[in-house]
Amino acid sequence: MAGNSFGELFRVTTFGESHGAALGAIVDGCPPGLELSVEEIQRQLDRRKPGQNRFTTARREADSVQVLSGVFEGKTTGAPIGLLIHNSDQRSQDYGAIKDLFRPGHADYTYAHKYGHRDYRGGGRSSARETAMRVAAGAIAMQWLAQHGVMIRAGVVQIGPHQTDVDAATFDWSQTSQNPFFCPDATMATACDEFMRALKKEGDSVGARVLVEATGIPVGLGEPVFDRLDADLAKALMSINAVKAVAIGDGFAVAAQRGSEHRDPLTPTGFSSNHAGGTLGGISTGQSLRMELAFKPTSSITIPGTTIDTQGETQEIVTRGRHDPCVGIRGVPVAEAMVALVVMDHWLRHRAQNADVAHSFPDIER
Amino acid sequence: MAGNSFGELFRVTTFGESHGAALGAIVDGCPPGLELSVEEIQRQLDRRKPGQNRFTTARREADSVQVLSGVFEGKTTGAPIGLLIHNSDQRSQDYGAIKDLFRPGHADYTYAHKYGHRDYRGGGRSSARETAMRVAAGAIAMQWLAQHGVMIRAGVVQIGPHQTDVDAATFDWSQTSQNPFFCPDATMATACDEFMRALKKEGDSVGARVLVEATGIPVGLGEPVFDRLDADLAKALMSINAVKAVAIGDGFAVAAQRGSEHRDPLTPTGFSSNHAGGTLGGISTGQSLRMELAFKPTSSITIPGTTIDTQGETQEIVTRGRHDPCVGIRGVPVAEAMVALVVMDHWLRHRAQNADVAHSFPDIER
Amino acid sequence: MAGNSFGELFRVTTFGESHGAALGAIVDGCPPGLELSVEEIQRQLDRRKPGQNRFTTARREADSVQVLSGVFEGKTTGAPIGLLIHNSDQRSQDYGAIKDLFRPGHADYTYAHKYGHRDYRGGGRSSARETAMRVAAGAIAMQWLAQHGVMIRAGVVQIGPHQTDVDAATFDWSQTSQNPFFCPDATMATACDEFMRALKKEGDSVGARVLVEATGIPVGLGEPVFDRLDADLAKALMSINAVKAVAIGDGFAVAAQRGSEHRDPLTPTGFSSNHAGGTLGGISTGQSLRMELAFKPTSSITIPGTTIDTQGETQEIVTRGRHDPCVGIRGVPVAEAMVALVVMDHWLRHRAQNADVAHSFPDIER
Amino acid sequence: MAGNSFGELFRVTTFGESHGAALGAIVDGCPPGLELSVEEIQRQLDRRKPGQNRFTTARREADSVQVLSGVFEGKTTGAPIGLLIHNSDQRSQDYGAIKDLFRPGHADYTYAHKYGHRDYRGGGRSSARETAMRVAAGAIAMQWLAQHGVMIRAGVVQIGPHQTDVDAATFDWSQTSQNPFFCPDATMATACDEFMRALKKEGDSVGARVLVEATGIPVGLGEPVFDRLDADLAKALMSINAVKAVAIGDGFAVAAQRGSEHRDPLTPTGFSSNHAGGTLGGISTGQSLRMELAFKPTSSITIPGTTIDTQGETQEIVTRGRHDPCVGIRGVPVAEAMVALVVMDHWLRHRAQNADVAHSFPDIER
Repeated sequence: MAGNSFGELFRVTTFGESHGAALGAIVDGCPPGLELSVEEIQRQLDRRKPGQNRFTTARREADSVQVLSGVFEGKTTGAPIGLLIHNSDQRSQDYGAIKDLFRPGHADYTYAHKYGHRDYRGGGRSSARETAMRVAAGAIAMQWLAQHGVMIRAGVVQIGPHQTDVDAATFDWSQTSQNPFFCPDATMATACDEFMRALKKEGDSVGARVLVEATGIPVGLGEPVFDRLDADLAKALMSINAVKAVAIGDGFAVAAQRGSEHRDPLTPTGFSSNHAGGTLGGISTGQSLRMELAFKPTSSITIPGTTIDTQGETQEIVTRGRHDPCVGIRGVPVAEAMVALVVMDHWLRHRAQNADVAHSFPDIER
Repeated sequence: MAGNSFGELFRVTTFGESHGAALGAIVDGCPPGLELSVEEIQRQLDRRKPGQNRFTTARREADSVQVLSGVFEGKTTGAPIGLLIHNSDQRSQDYGAIKDLFRPGHADYTYAHKYGHRDYRGGGRSSARETAMRVAAGAIAMQWLAQHGVMIRAGVVQIGPHQTDVDAATFDWSQTSQNPFFCPDATMATACDEFMRALKKEGDSVGARVLVEATGIPVGLGEPVFDRLDADLAKALMSINAVKAVAIGDGFAVAAQRGSEHRDPLTPTGFSSNHAGGTLGGISTGQSLRMELAFKPTSSITIPGTTIDTQGETQEIVTRGRHDPCVGIRGVPVAEAMVALVVMDHWLRHRAQNADVAHSFPDIER
Repeated sequence: MAGNSFGELFRVTTFGESHGAALGAIVDGCPPGLELSVEEIQRQLDRRKPGQNRFTTARREADSVQVLSGVFEGKTTGAPIGLLIHNSDQRSQDYGAIKDLFRPGHADYTYAHKYGHRDYRGGGRSSARETAMRVAAGAIAMQWLAQHGVMIRAGVVQIGPHQTDVDAATFDWSQTSQNPFFCPDATMATACDEFMRALKKEGDSVGARVLVEATGIPVGLGEPVFDRLDADLAKALMSINAVKAVAIGDGFAVAAQRGSEHRDPLTPTGFSSNHAGGTLGGISTGQSLRMELAFKPTSSITIPGTTIDTQGETQEIVTRGRHDPCVGIRGVPVAEAMVALVVMDHWLRHRAQNADVAHSFPDIER
Repeated sequence: MAGNSFGELFRVTTFGESHGAALGAIVDGCPPGLELSVEEIQRQLDRRKPGQNRFTTARREADSVQVLSGVFEGKTTGAPIGLLIHNSDQRSQDYGAIKDLFRPGHADYTYAHKYGHRDYRGGGRSSARETAMRVAAGAIAMQWLAQHGVMIRAGVVQIGPHQTDVDAATFDWSQTSQNPFFCPDATMATACDEFMRALKKEGDSVGARVLVEATGIPVGLGEPVFDRLDADLAKALMSINAVKAVAIGDGFAVAAQRGSEHRDPLTPTGFSSNHAGGTLGGISTGQSLRMELAFKPTSSITIPGTTIDTQGETQEIVTRGRHDPCVGIRGVPVAEAMVALVVMDHWLRHRAQNADVAHSFPDIER
């Protein structure tokens, strides 16, 4: 396959370029009978959409979604769900100045070589604009999951030098809707506000770290040996534009740990810690899933840089256009959506093979 | 699918349990005409096989591989390649003492709940013994890739508190075959030797961090938007037993970087740095791929821990059996194999869609 | 997967119901650089579209297709191609009378039981209206294939008691655009005209048999052992609404043949016959592909029939609405499209594995 | 994928050549907890195995199957099931005389061109010997299906000029084990006995037609629009060596039928006929599935024929070796196995998406 589908049984296929006519998706495999709220899909899109505050791109898109099929009298039918968003604010002329330049840190060079041509208009298919459709599809999964007790939340826990001191276990998640950074820590958000204003003035960008938590996950999701739940989560998160690292549970810190320290004891009333992040052997334990991912700073900045043009000559480049100084911020709803797609897909896969399983093993409290 | 296949066009499917009769794999999609050296497959298996030194499990397995099909007169035919390794040293009796206990940090609990039964013999399908077949299949991919100029190497760069000071760019890779830790830094290897002896005496285990580098990668591999090369690498590496984190290029450090610092300048003679780790927009740049992954400490240790039994009662557990005190060490050839499988698969996928592409863009020196 | 995708590497995913807002498709995997004519896609849709003559449904749909992505400056980019057709002439009220009845010979009963609800409006997803998107996607494949020398043509060779006497090898294919039946035999077409007028008066429907021929196929397409070219053609054709049988080459007649009669001799200037229909061992021989398929008579007729309602009570049913008296007729462009999708997909699959193959075997003239 | 896997959720992957060391398969996705009888797998293999009577090849193979994984204490575990059969009676020397000739009607020519080399030993991967693994895998599916009330049976209903007069609805299925032709009609079997003796003396071969029936199928299996149950059955059956045509229900006869004649009326106690063959809209109706398929006469005969050699020169060919004069006979257990694989796979797919569906529609008696 050419890479534009995600999932095996709850399968999302997307199309659309940054400066094309529209973005679209087909969600295939949604169970029938789900009461689907289009307003809720739109609400998730609105969380991601550009132009909402001074810290995101100035591009104005309504990102108004249409549901074209698969729903009848307010409920899913089991037929594929067609989704469509028309683009409205494409200012391709912004890109004239860099038409023949490969932006450093950008997909320009690799797309040109892979496909043999250049779509210089805002990155074409490589633009993060593509992630709108991930959010729309994820919002469908989230509605089904919510009915089954699952909740998925994410927040920015680091922007450049500023990280939260708050322990993930004691986050005040409601904070994430109180500041423009989806930050679960008001103190960090205040520090970031000042930092980001200065950064914008300099014309630079910055990286970010995002934490995702999924609660209410049943024990048993994940298909060893290759399609482990954590492996598919890693792929899902790494497939988001600008992501360079993914961790489950304690992540890279495990390299320094001992077995006696890392293992999470089981007790009749639940696991007494969660170093594992909610999976063992690639299968969910029933604890919360806990993941982190890192977004690189966007490459589209106004500080001059060195590059080559399509003739191979050295050039100086300045990328104006309209760009996010910290792509990790709007990555928050995208990360939530990708986790929802993975969990939903594995839920259906699990019950395909194991719907008949009966056992008397203890289900410890999570 | 139930999770035991990897890859789309170069597709590996495996079977076999730790204490079953045999392990096997089918490699489907290998191009015909490849001169295949069974000795070279065996050599890779020997690098991974247990019982080779004091720092790996004492289990003795010849891990002698048979190639049952797909090769005629020394060359691949294009038909599927059947691989088989018989198990010989299964001491299931070792596991009698923990027959009814869920080992903390182990897949016992999740497998039991997912499948409704317990195969207590050494972890059954969840055992890292399964990775022998990944190494065998990867060794086939490596032979094809070697003919196309690609080389894949990995090394242990951290064990517990000990990390290498050497810069990856200046590694002496030949060191990795000179010490039992696949460590590219002789000084670190010496420190680890002492550390591991003490650890073994205590009956504890330890985590590790592994670096993988692939050179000779052409520009253009990777299928946006979901099957990005880095996304599939992340899945491949996270699917290895005990892995909890994966990074490409600068990894989590990008969260603290600025765009002006992170972006890799292009010059007529090549990129002048490699913060990206060899991919932009999910497509290979032609630079070396550079990844890191973290292995957790194995959960099978002799230091007593707390758990429950299959009746839900609290119990103390001590896992004797024969286990690796640091699973990250033998994870090195497995990580190399998984990267080989991803690169090979994407090579075939790339040429399926883009075999006709002709362009005049500059191919800068890597 | 939930069944709405077709193909591995040239992959089409569709959505849309007969009486919903729109039909759509995503074509993923199209090689970049193809000059794509939207007019030609529309021309193929126009061949299939309803309301063109007295022998097809009276429903009026412009079936005007939009290409929303994947094309830049007239050429495909390698990104997924989004296709959209808005529905305009949905007269759902036609279906009020049969809202609670299961039409015999129709998918009503099976959809209701599979998905747990009824979309009585013209069949919903089960309607042949869905095939418009197959034709649009197939028209893209045909354009690529045409540049590689492949031509795909189909014609109606039987309607009820009327069959053509002309031998397939001597068809005048231009005839198929001269009569409303896509019939390559003018004499048969004349007979059918009278027959169909009488049939329509009676309110009955009739079956049909269609022949498809693909010329210019290279030797080597098809992936044994399961994804043989003929196996995938059989699936493709049987997946068209109302199709009940598929044959390659001599089809069911082979049961009566002897080996000395069936085998096609090879000579230095080509095979001297084509009983095989263009495949041996599931791989194309380089000869023309020759297939036949049979369409059942549509179940939506005004002659009263026996059925049950959603309460399980016996009822008499008369289906008015607007229906094709012979669905096989409009099945012609659909069959051509499905063959195009299969050939295109296998072309890409073949070169993925075998792009490197060099040999000195004779390529006999076809 | 390179074509050696079948099924989405109950997935079979096979390897092995006619004259290689062994045949093998991996069955992935079998639900855990199934009591698996290896004897029953062997019994099915014995029905297919060569050398059992004068009308099949004289090659002697024990076809003794080993189950290497996925089963613990007599029950499936949910892990992949590894299957192995060693070849024993490979007489490759038989093929020396045709080493450089392309057998007409055989896969020689196409395999050589696709893969760039010749494995002249009995057809290599293209040999029907490969179907042993389909039977073994199908026998696992059949055991699961039998516990769910499904039974799959096939019989030869035509060999050359001899067809059964008996109506399928009144077959005495027990007859199929009473004669060497799997024929459900004793009279036809007697006629065939004489016919086949004469044919063998002449050194010729003959085609056959096989009928398959599956009873106990629940309503609702099949995934529209592409992965219809009938479409996947068509692919499964057409993928068997030598099959040239597949029909569901009335098959090609529907081309001559009228809607008023073809549609199967629904009554409170069931459908009153089964022209459809058990599917409507590509979804099972709950009636029996009824299919027919045609096998061509094998090309390996001793009557001289015309061909070319690998240099492109005209040659006369006589194929000695050990071959079935009517491959359709041993195709009977293979056809049953393929139907079992399709039904099993669709059962799992159906419950993945629709496990939650509740409705009050009438389930009419089948």
